[in-house]
Amino acid sequence: MKITCDKQELLRALNIVTKAVPSNTTMPVLKCVLINASSSDITFTANDMELGIETKVTGMVAEKGTIALEAKLFSDMIRKLPDSDVTISSDDKFNTAITCEKIKFHIMGQSGEDFPILPFVEKDYQISLSQFTLKEVIRQTIFSISSGEANKTLTGELFEIRENQLRVISLDGHRSSVRYIDMKDAYEDKQAIVPGKTLSELSKIFTGGTEDNVNIYMTDNHILFVFDETIIVSRLIEGKFFRLDSMLTNNYDTKVRINRMEFMNCIDRATLMVKEGDKRPIILNIADNVMELKITSQIGMMNDVIDIEMEGKNLKIGFNPRFLLEALRVIDDEEIDIYYMNSKSPCFIRDENHTYNYMVLPVNFVD
Amino acid sequence: MKITCDKQELLRALNIVTKAVPSNTTMPVLKCVLINASSSDITFTANDMELGIETKVTGMVAEKGTIALEAKLFSDMIRKLPDSDVTISSDDKFNTAITCEKIKFHIMGQSGEDFPILPFVEKDYQISLSQFTLKEVIRQTIFSISSGEANKTLTGELFEIRENQLRVISLDGHRSSVRYIDMKDAYEDKQAIVPGKTLSELSKIFTGGTEDNVNIYMTDNHILFVFDETIIVSRLIEGKFFRLDSMLTNNYDTKVRINRMEFMNCIDRATLMVKEGDKRPIILNIADNVMELKITSQIGMMNDVIDIEMEGKNLKIGFNPRFLLEALRVIDDEEIDIYYMNSKSPCFIRDENHTYNYMVLPVNFVD
Repeated sequence: MKITCDKQELLRALNIVTKAVPSNTTMPVLKCVLINASSSDITFTANDMELGIETKVTGMVAEKGTIALEAKLFSDMIRKLPDSDVTISSDDKFNTAITCEKIKFHIMGQSGEDFPILPFVEKDYQISLSQFTLKEVIRQTIFSISSGEANKTLTGELFEIRENQLRVISLDGHRSSVRYIDMKDAYEDKQAIVPGKTLSELSKIFTGGTEDNVNIYMTDNHILFVFDETIIVSRLIEGKFFRLDSMLTNNYDTKVRINRMEFMNCIDRATLMVKEGDKRPIILNIADNVMELKITSQIGMMNDVIDIEMEGKNLKIGFNPRFLLEALRVIDDEEIDIYYMNSKSPCFIRDENHTYNYMVLPVNFVD
Repeated sequence: MKITCDKQELLRALNIVTKAVPSNTTMPVLKCVLINASSSDITFTANDMELGIETKVTGMVAEKGTIALEAKLFSDMIRKLPDSDVTISSDDKFNTAITCEKIKFHIMGQSGEDFPILPFVEKDYQISLSQFTLKEVIRQTIFSISSGEANKTLTGELFEIRENQLRVISLDGHRSSVRYIDMKDAYEDKQAIVPGKTLSELSKIFTGGTEDNVNIYMTDNHILFVFDETIIVSRLIEGKFFRLDSMLTNNYDTKVRINRMEFMNCIDRATLMVKEGDKRPIILNIADNVMELKITSQIGMMNDVIDIEMEGKNLKIGFNPRFLLEALRVIDDEEIDIYYMNSKSPCFIRDENHTYNYMVLPVNFVD
């Protein structure tokens, strides 16, 4: 194989595909990037057997073939080369030379034929989103996926299409995040549980804006994202996702409108009183258009008072400050509405336009 | 004690003094910042018993006294407060309240009387430098101090004043760095070995430019830096520093003039062939106004060629690429001169204006 490409183009492609190189694996070839120049096109591929990424690379093929090169070393070599044409050539014993101006690297590659090909995904079911929207919705929900292995489905996010709306849901045992995205067209109903790792790598790759579309294809076992010159294919998580609908009540006994930054900064300060792993709640005392906040621990005590608008009953309720904080951070609104039932029931942070709904369970506290 | 200061002023002072808070200590009070408001002035002090920092804080003293507050918690609390006036008050049981607008923190402090006072340093011997110069000279030499404890003196840098020149020297078993600074006035000869940690913390604190002076006072046991509203006092390392002078020969058999960036980038690429802890040399083959560079390892091989200007004999010599790289990074000249004797003798990178002299020992290699 012998190809010549611009250094910056190689670097762009490597920055994309290396997101699918596993940090630990028992199959050494998975630590590689596959260079495929078996036709007149050049593609780079990485594949950790759950997530696979392939991107087209602009360049010249002088001799057709394939080679797999250790991803980190290959990326580092390309990064440290001058901005110029780079030639990559390998012989039938996988000896590989990377040359640029007067610089020559010689390394040992691996057979491209040993590299696992990406699964084929039928393109029967398709939806379309902007890169910006998909990246945003991942950021706004990924923090509340479950890390544990107790329930594998909760380590992913539910992508649920119903008529002309996409709902993206994540939850662990303490809170849930729901984002609603209105779509231009109506689609057949569909559900898929997408692994959290796939989503976090995806959002690192997207650089596009609201004008740059991603086509998303789903089968029973796979989800495929196609954009620019890149395709990303991921296995889906098997199983039934938790049915959240029954918990998302619209009833409330207390409604609070509060300045989001003021609330967030206050809770952020309160976390200083909580050591890693400590479960001290922050106690909100809601009465007479004022929210008093208080946290007490072995470290010390913090009090604060925030002016609010309220409807309904007075209430005293405790929360894990981190769970409130993580939801508040991904909301963009200046003023937010929080709905409470009583001190034992979850609170809901949701907007009137019905674009998000964050639920947080309260914590028992001794007064 | 009760004082009121602006949040930003508190933060500025804490960012300076916390550089002397030890990360590990058997004396809990050293983890604190001492607030001293026993007169109408307010000072903050931290002291790890080797390095001590004290800075004046602008503010109002409503009630005189002292208190020691856990440095990390105190800094975090101040950082997360709004930009406004902050009142710090403590009672005789060291209960401390930090209040800002409607926010109140209550934490437990420690007795300010238990905090070790900074050593008194006689101001008999003084020199003066700009903050910029001192910061630069630390950056240009600190990388080659010795990390080991085999020779304690080499974990510091020699500050040597001779007539109207300051020489700053660091060395380990493989290389040395010397910087020469011409001073406006002539001074009595003096030597001091300043701990590496003191110097690296110092250079983090300096924000000043060429117009902002530091006054430096030295006794047999201490060095004192005075600038702006801050004093920094450090113990000196006892003992005799290695006598480098006899090694700094001006003789050479080969002189090479080379583009620094080109040489540096080439060696940086060569380090990709060297695993952490591996001691593969980069081999320089100097002949006929060309330097060929080559490195071979289990990972692979790299070759490069750089055009040079040379005087004297042809030479083939090997170096640890990291040692060359670290010296090249702190030199500002575009073209540099390197002087060699033979493949067993150190090389010297030095300038004609006599402002620096970097020595690197060669490494044996099998051709």
